[in-house]
This record gives sequence, structure tokens and C-alpha cells, in this order.
Amino acid sequence: MTHTVALAPLSPTARTTHKRARHHGVTDRAALFDVLRSAKLCHLGVSTDGVPLVLPTAYGFDPEGPDQDGTLYLHGSVASRSLAPDSEICVTVTVLDGLVLARSGFHHSMNYRSAAILGRPRIVTDPDERLGALNLIVDQVVPDRSGHLRASTRKELAATVVLALPLFEASVKARTGGPGDDESDIGVEQVWAGVIPASVQFGEPIRAEDLDADITLPEHVSAMM
Amino acid sequence: MTHTVALAPLSPTARTTHKRARHHGVTDRAALFDVLRSAKLCHLGVSTDGVPLVLPTAYGFDPEGPDQDGTLYLHGSVASRSLAPDSEICVTVTVLDGLVLARSGFHHSMNYRSAAILGRPRIVTDPDERLGALNLIVDQVVPDRSGHLRASTRKELAATVVLALPLFEASVKARTGGPGDDESDIGVEQVWAGVIPASVQFGEPIRAEDLDADITLPEHVSAMM
Repeated sequence: MTHTVALAPLSPTARTTHKRARHHGVTDRAALFDVLRSAKLCHLGVSTDGVPLVLPTAYGFDPEGPDQDGTLYLHGSVASRSLAPDSEICVTVTVLDGLVLARSGFHHSMNYRSAAILGRPRIVTDPDERLGALNLIVDQVVPDRSGHLRASTRKELAATVVLALPLFEASVKARTGGPGDDESDIGVEQVWAGVIPASVQFGEPIRAEDLDADITLPEHVSAMM
Repeated sequence: MTHTVALAPLSPTARTTHKRARHHGVTDRAALFDVLRSAKLCHLGVSTDGVPLVLPTAYGFDPEGPDQDGTLYLHGSVASRSLAPDSEICVTVTVLDGLVLARSGFHHSMNYRSAAILGRPRIVTDPDERLGALNLIVDQVVPDRSGHLRASTRKELAATVVLALPLFEASVKARTGGPGDDESDIGVEQVWAGVIPASVQFGEPIRAEDLDADITLPEHVSAMM
């Protein structure tokens, strides 16, 4: 007997099935781009012989990219673990916004925004698209950074694979607001309830040890704090 | 022709293959528990007919749990999307520690700690283990929280599935330190290089609107800031 069970809401009060929506309205697209703008890394899921593997990695995206509904870009090494570009992948980006403390353990939750993008990536071969994609990945980490860097060398480009995934098949989930306690607990359970806001904060930049002494902190770096 | 490509290091300078190590020394175990202690959510990967799906969810863990090398716990709704407990899953926990700005785009990276745990989860049926696991999941979000809450009701417990995954088959990856620039760029490229530290910060707790006025902020909540 195969006993199937359900998994794994961030919010036990909002157990939305993760549907593979085939089309999104304007509102959903805005929510998707909001999530993609708000994170530094994604979790890439691949499946090999039925075994899933989930790895953190950098990404970039272009709402006006050449794929249907825009393009998400990933990059990797030509040398490391292999992935067939025609196999399905899932790229999930999650932003934690708060910890939701309820009167009961059951209604504890998190406020978050998360986007899952599914599809079969293509290898980017067009030289201009490759350069643009790598700049988008750098600028996702630190906005405006790529414009301050030397051009990539031919050797660097040859060692790098760029993959593109359409932003077409995507699903956005989010939770906001306070705890969703049972009526019977409110005013009865004498325990603090509410939300602890959470966000990623960037600290004082640390200069590389081998950085020339006369190079000062540029605006695009100080703007991160 | 199937053109296989490589994906997707957080650090292009540390392209470690994500090996499925069958045994870990003390150091690796300590690194694994450090990652598990340091995050609030994980990314769960499942594979359905070869299609990976990656979802954020809460977790808890017990280094002394009944499974080999300890136990990771997940919970879900009996009602929502299904997962066969005997199918392989991957649970990945990632902590972002910093943004690594190099002279070249190629050497941009992130400092991070990440653990991937693979295996076939079991459904937890023992009542005491179920209660303990749910408390661990709550306390992962806010340490010491579970001890302040009423007991779960039978109805809540009946609506909740608890899964256990051994911490046996796990892999930890991490990057620390400054940028790994090419020698030929150091002292030549006139661009700031270094690390922007990153961490999740918790803000001023927001009281639930329906919280009794005489309930003050407890120590286990204020300790989060």
C-alpha cells in the first residue's frame, strides 16, 4: 500500500496547492517580479532518475527577455555536475518576511513570498544574450555592479554555461498579516501573539585584503546598506 | 543529441560536486548542525514523474532523533498536495552570509552555508515522537516558544502529518572569505572588491490586533531581536 501524505505548507492556514498555472494575469506577473527582485539566490531543483536534488544558486531575470513572459537566467560551470538542458527543472525563490506567532502551535506560520518557475531550460548561445544574462546575474547580487567591471574574457565565457528558463510557467505563493488563531483561543490563551518581522540586512562592507588603498567605497556598494 | 551542461555553483571558484556522502566525520556533522540551527525554513524538493518541484517549508531537527545520525522533521496537512513517503526527497537549508564582489564578473560569488539532506521519509506515528517533532518545528522558528503554548488538540493532530528524514545522507557546502580574483586583475582593475556581510535580522515584534492589552512581550520573543 502506498500511503500518500500531504506536505508542507509554510502556512498551515493557507494550504494552497502549488498549481502549475498556465497563464497569469497582470497582478500575478507583478507579484512574480516582486519576488524575483527581492532575493539574492534561488533554489534549483533537478530530478535524476526520480531523485530530486535541490541546490542554492545565483540567478538573474529579464521581464522583457526573449522567452515567453520573460526569461530567468542561471549560470554554471562547464566542468561541474551535469544537467541535461531539455530536462525539467524547478527554480524557487523565497523571501522570508516574518515569523507568525499564534496562540497554538498549529497556527504558527511564516510570512513569506515565494515563486516557483518550472520548465525546460535552453542553453543560451547568442553572444549578446550570454553577456547580458551574466550581467543580470551580477546585478541581481549588487544592482549596477556590472557596469563597473571589465569585460569578461573569452576564457571566462568559454568556461561558463548560461541557461534560460521562460517565466511562463510560474506560481507565486505568499502569506502576510497576523496569526490566524482559533476564535476559542483569542482572549483565553494568555500568551503573546503577533508577528516578528524578518529581512535580510547587509552590513558594513569588508574590503578585500589585496584592494588598493586609494579605492574608496563606491555608491553602488554603499547603497546596499 | 543530448547536450549536458553543468550547473550552478553559488561560488564559481568552489565548484564542488554535490556528492552524496555515505558517512560524515565529526567536523561535517558539526557543520550540518550549524546550518540546521541557523535557518528558519528549508526548501523541499520532490520529484513526480521526473518533474522536480521545490517548495519552501518549515522544519525541525533532533541530533539525537531515532533515525540514523539524527532526524529532520517536516510537517504538512493531511488535506493538501500528496507525497508518497517512500519516495526520495531532498531537503536543502541555505544560509546567506555575504555577497562577494570581485574585480571580474566571473569571480563574483556569495558566502553561504548550505546543507542538502536526501532520503525517503517515514511517517511519524508514535504519539510522543509526533508531539516532540511539532514542538521542534515551532522552536526552530522561535526558540523556547513551544513551552509557552497550550497542548495541541486531537483535531489539530489528526489534521497534521509529520515526516521524519534521517540526517544520514547529507552534504554540506560552504563558502567563506574574500573574492578569489585573478592575479592579473589585482592592483590593475580600479574597482572596489570585498564582501558585503548579509544576515537575517528580526525587527520590532508587531502585536496581534486581537491580543489582550495586558499581555507583555515575553523574553523568548524579545530575545529574537
